[in-house]
Amino acid sequence: MSTRIAVPLPKAYLLLNHGPTVLVSSAHGGRQNVMAAAWNMALDFDPPKVAVVIDKATLTRELVEASGEFVLSVPSRQQAALTLAVGTQSGREGDKLQKLGAGGTAASIVGAPLIEGCLAWLECRVIPEPHIEQAYDLFLAEVVAAWAEPEVFSGGRWHFPDEQRRSIHYQAGGNFFATGEAFEV
Amino acid sequence: MSTRIAVPLPKAYLLLNHGPTVLVSSAHGGRQNVMAAAWNMALDFDPPKVAVVIDKATLTRELVEASGEFVLSVPSRQQAALTLAVGTQSGREGDKLQKLGAGGTAASIVGAPLIEGCLAWLECRVIPEPHIEQAYDLFLAEVVAAWAEPEVFSGGRWHFPDEQRRSIHYQAGGNFFATGEAFEV
Repeated sequence: MSTRIAVPLPKAYLLLNHGPTVLVSSAHGGRQNVMAAAWNMALDFDPPKVAVVIDKATLTRELVEASGEFVLSVPSRQQAALTLAVGTQSGREGDKLQKLGAGGTAASIVGAPLIEGCLAWLECRVIPEPHIEQAYDLFLAEVVAAWAEPEVFSGGRWHFPDEQRRSIHYQAGGNFFATGEAFEV
Repeated sequence: MSTRIAVPLPKAYLLLNHGPTVLVSSAHGGRQNVMAAAWNMALDFDPPKVAVVIDKATLTRELVEASGEFVLSVPSRQQAALTLAVGTQSGREGDKLQKLGAGGTAASIVGAPLIEGCLAWLECRVIPEPHIEQAYDLFLAEVVAAWAEPEVFSGGRWHFPDEQRRSIHYQAGGNFFATGEAFEV
């Protein structure tokens, strides 16, 4: 984590533009949690905004509503088992980060932790839109800080160095795709 | 297009779950258009819903607002140049489908066309949410019909047969990723 570099905010959308599955971490009142979210997307360039679906049944929802903050971490293929686990277990049954051995590092602005070992991170502050939060479990947020591992993202581009250090895309039933070959048209 | 099969509506989210870049097609009053959208995601399982960002400046926005409908088509790597072209040209300067040689086939329920040669299609009806449409260019819609080429999607799973018939993920500046290796954890 110590090697991570700041991503300029107008470039933060590039961390999500290719549609990776992310981890959503949250913290409030001494509790923290992390879940997986395939249903996320960039929403604006500058100031950067994101959209993510957070189900009412989740502890994450409770912590995000209480704190008004979350972090999106972009996991690597090495973390696919962790991604599946945090997506299927509930934080109400004990601290998932601790149970799963997922390290959390303090973020720079928000209270939610950056998940260690990931490829990139977006610190997010919720833009309150109570109607769509209630009706669709849809949360909008402004990205207030962004970070990346320079081995995989720098100069506004992803450049995955090997098969394990790539972002992942969840399908269903424990099946993922790795981000594949880069090409230019 | 004649080989496409219906995707059961509760499985429609799987067409977008891995975060591909899509084409958004629309039609109204004798005009039609198509644009690219990396900023899309599934929003619900059953009935299936989607979210997509459609900028105010686009002709697509005008046609979607007038018709209350659109189609999301999932393009293949073979269509990356088309995807980039429809994402950078404006439909106000002439019929993009015609100019770019992109075929459109009639959808089953909505008036917008299915873009030929794509891997899958979601026919969508806008769920009116004027505030977030205006404030964030964010459109929510219910998927009312879904289709896929059985060579690439069947039984609720993507199974890309070769390097060209894969979905794509836009980065920036004409750079894409192909959907990569499938793996299970």
